[in-house]
Order: sequence, then C-alpha cells, then structure tokens
Amino acid sequence: MPHRFALIIDPVAADDARDDFADTFTEVDAAAPALSVGELSTQRGDGVFESIGVIDGHAQEVVPHLERLANSARICDLPVPHQEQWRQAVAVAAAQCPPGEAVIKLILSRGVEHGPTPTAWVTAAPAPDFSAVRARGVSVATLDRGYDLAAAERAPWLLLGAKTLSYAVNMAALREARRRGADDAIFLSSDGFVLEAPTASLILRIGDRFTTPEPTGGILHGTTQLSVYDHLASRGLDAGYDRIPASDLARADAAWLVSSVRLAVAVTAVDGAALPVDHALTAELNEYLLSPRH
Amino acid sequence: MPHRFALIIDPVAADDARDDFADTFTEVDAAAPALSVGELSTQRGDGVFESIGVIDGHAQEVVPHLERLANSARICDLPVPHQEQWRQAVAVAAAQCPPGEAVIKLILSRGVEHGPTPTAWVTAAPAPDFSAVRARGVSVATLDRGYDLAAAERAPWLLLGAKTLSYAVNMAALREARRRGADDAIFLSSDGFVLEAPTASLILRIGDRFTTPEPTGGILHGTTQLSVYDHLASRGLDAGYDRIPASDLARADAAWLVSSVRLAVAVTAVDGAALPVDHALTAELNEYLLSPRH
Repeated sequence: MPHRFALIIDPVAADDARDDFADTFTEVDAAAPALSVGELSTQRGDGVFESIGVIDGHAQEVVPHLERLANSARICDLPVPHQEQWRQAVAVAAAQCPPGEAVIKLILSRGVEHGPTPTAWVTAAPAPDFSAVRARGVSVATLDRGYDLAAAERAPWLLLGAKTLSYAVNMAALREARRRGADDAIFLSSDGFVLEAPTASLILRIGDRFTTPEPTGGILHGTTQLSVYDHLASRGLDAGYDRIPASDLARADAAWLVSSVRLAVAVTAVDGAALPVDHALTAELNEYLLSPRH
Repeated sequence: MPHRFALIIDPVAADDARDDFADTFTEVDAAAPALSVGELSTQRGDGVFESIGVIDGHAQEVVPHLERLANSARICDLPVPHQEQWRQAVAVAAAQCPPGEAVIKLILSRGVEHGPTPTAWVTAAPAPDFSAVRARGVSVATLDRGYDLAAAERAPWLLLGAKTLSYAVNMAALREARRRGADDAIFLSSDGFVLEAPTASLILRIGDRFTTPEPTGGILHGTTQLSVYDHLASRGLDAGYDRIPASDLARADAAWLVSSVRLAVAVTAVDGAALPVDHALTAELNEYLLSPRH
C-alpha cells in the first residue's frame, strides 16, 4: 500500500436506487494536490469529520461513526451523508490498510466557495504507535472551554454537538497543556463542570461507579466511550452519565481518556497532582478495544 | 485576468537578506487542485487568514491587515509571516485584479499533517456587487456567542483575538440569522454585552458619540472600523471604545456593520425592531472607504 491512501467521494451521485457506489469514488495521491484553494473546509473550517480506528484491516464501529457524521452534518445544515455510500468508501479504504493499526478519516466539507455541492473525501494511513502511551498513561491540564454547561442547548449555532473541522481551539488547548508540562488537556465548562479532552472522551471511576459527562452539555458523544461502556456492562459494572463537578477529578479512583485510534490511556495526574492508575483495567480495555467490533 | 487568481507562497524561503520574493511565489489555477488532503487548514481549520478589499487594483489598508495576520499567527503559535514577503504577494495579486472592486484573501495554514512547514497562499477574485446592500442596509438578529466578556483574557487558548480558519460557528450564526428572517447577526457575550458580527465590526452612534465594543473582550480589532474612526476623527466627531450592554442596541441613533469588502452597511433593524438609518453618513463612509487608503 502507499503510505497514505485517499479517495474523493462524489456525494451528489448517491441515491437509494443503486447499491454499488464504486463509480462515485476517485482515488487520488494523498501527497499530491487534490483540493482547490476555494475549498470552504480550508477557508472556514466549514465541514464535519470522523476518525475511525482500523485493526488488521477491520474498521471499528463504522455504523456509530457514520451516524455521528450524519448528526454533525444535520447540526451544520450540510446534506446528510448517504450511509451506504460512505460505508462502501470506508470498506475500500480499510482494504488498503496494512496489518496492525491504522486510521481512516472521513471529511465532509461544504465544498468550494459559491460552488453548488459539498466536497467529501476519505483517507487511510498507518496509525502512530500508541503502545507506550497506553502502558504509561498521560498527565493532563484542565483548561476552561469558555462555555457554560447550558450554552449548547441555548445556542445551537455554537455547533457544540458537532464534530466540525473548526478544531483550532482543540489544537491550541493541546499546545497549552504541553506548555504546562502535561501530555493532554481536559476541558472544563466556565461554570466548573468536566467536559471532555480536545480529541478524546473522559471516563472516571469513583468508588464502584464509572462515570462520564452527560453528552447533553455540548460535548461529543464518544464512540469509543460507548464501546467501553458496552464492555463494562458485560462485566456487570456500574457505568453511567453524570454532571461532574471539576472537583471530582481530584477524588477519582481512576480516570481514562478514550478515543478511536489512541484507544484507552490512563490519566496519571491532573494539574500536577497524581491520580491512582488501574493498569490492569487499562490493559483489559485496550485488549477489548483492539478486538474487532461493530 | 482569469476569474480567480491564486499564488502559493513558500514561507520558509523568506528571510531579511533578500528584497525580492518573486521566486517564493508559485501561481496556480484557482479552480484546479492545489492543496493535499493532509492540509491541516482543511482537517482542523488550523490556520489564520485576512480578507483585503481592492479598489481599481489598489489593495486597501495592507499594513494593518498584515499586522493583524501576524498577530493572529502569534496567538496560534504559527511562524510569524514575513511582512515584506506577504506585502509583495499582495502586490502581485492586486496587479491581477480587474477595475472595480475585488477581494484578496491571505491564508497561513499550519501545513500538511506531520509536515515540517506551514502552507500559505493568496487569492484574488472580483468582489460581489454590494452596492444595493450598502444603499439598503441589513436587518440583524442578536445571537449569544456563548463566551463571557472575560473569557478571552482568562483563556487565551480559545484564540478569541485571532482570525482563525475555524469559522464554522460564524457561518452557522449567519444561517441562524437568516432562519430568523434577518440579513446578518450580531454576537452578544453570555453576560450580555455587544461583541461583533460574524464577519464585520459594529459601530453605533448614541447621541453625538460613536462607539464600538472594546477589542479586549475577545473580538477582532476591525481594520475597517479603524479606518472609519480615522475618518470620523478628521471630521471632528467623538468616537471611542466602550463596554456596550446589549440593551444599548435598541436605543442607538444609528448603527453600522463595517468590513473590508462589503464596507459600511447601516443596521436597519435589530431582532425585528427598526433602528434609525443615517443614509447620508452611510454614503459618506462608503465614499471614503472606496477611496485609496493605506
């Protein structure tokens, strides 16, 4: 396989009358020019995306990712992606992935400025080697996200439930965390509740209960968090959704950041204060997350 | 001239030892593929931009725009653009503009994922015909921006003073305003102060005083607002910066949205309530803004 694989999708060609979408895909050289300077994704961060983990050519949780892409598109008033067309595009990309871990990205952009249609593409590439960070964990800095917990419902134009391409703040938060000597960040609402990491969901264990912030407060509902909750349920463990005050971070008995490609990493410290690490459960979660899932 | 003109800039080639940067520019077809799918501008909205008005081939307020681009880059931890290189790129683009009004866009992206250097380009295109809206004005809807006035200073990773490519919320706010039957939007802080429009600055007149929101509260300092203030000062008028409560919008004696390409448009109504319109001053401001400026 080439180091990276890229497929441009024609979303306009999608309709329910067909069941083979192969002729709506155009493979392009991922390193060569493929997008015009008029692309609104690039001018305005105006589009939505997903990142899907791939294990030995098997794309994980494809349906939940496609459903979230569709939900993001609806929030952004973009044409809702045709699920079967995108499922086939993911399958084509997965077939190009090497053994081991890889990542497939789906991007749906509003298209070229003044243009009539959205632009869409899928890429595949080997994943970075996350084995060391999965074993070691990450320290985090807490950072104010600026919004109160009610902002998402009060002001849907803030697009807080959508995974948009406008991720400059998420990237800036990661740089700020590193300036503070931490590996990653956890966003807090301006009224003092725990939200999510810039590119991951947060799961805490407090006593016997696993908890994660309610996905109503303007955070993304994590596909990997949902998978982890399935696994915890199968083990008979108590896992729920709560409004979590920031002060709960310091009293957690364990915490993880979970995401589609890096999978589960233990939080080893919050703002410089050590947190207990459950190495056994972290390893178990990653073994589960590395197994083929739907 | 072609309908659109595009120039890729090599920011790495810029240094103070040279004074001609022509060989760091590559003209590309603006309608053809020029950017790779790995571009972080497109994947993450991770970059900064400026839009410059051009009148009969004269680019307006180039230095203030380049200074703001540099300030945005600093806030985003991007390499600060070389002012003389970009000034020359703007000159090349301006020379390609047709008579009448045009727009030059400057984009500085973090570059290709895992790549060593930023990507940068400049485009030029004829401006839309804004003469009707300048004469008629716009109705606006007020929309909560979700942040309180102190968020910018408290949380610089929110990038509130930078003109980043992550503009999905600005675009969503314009769609929401249109859903409400308005032409444009004015953002309010979550604690009830006036901020700016999604792509323009706001100037109010209350009695004999012109006022605009202080640029400390997480808004962009508008280059066109600064030009308008120069003009008002030359007329001996009182113009200042204030913390403006949202309730002041309804009692304004006149209001304008000002921006680099659409220039000055009167606000005719706020949330459905009519506002007085000063047609004579609007025309005077646009006559001034259409004259060559530096």
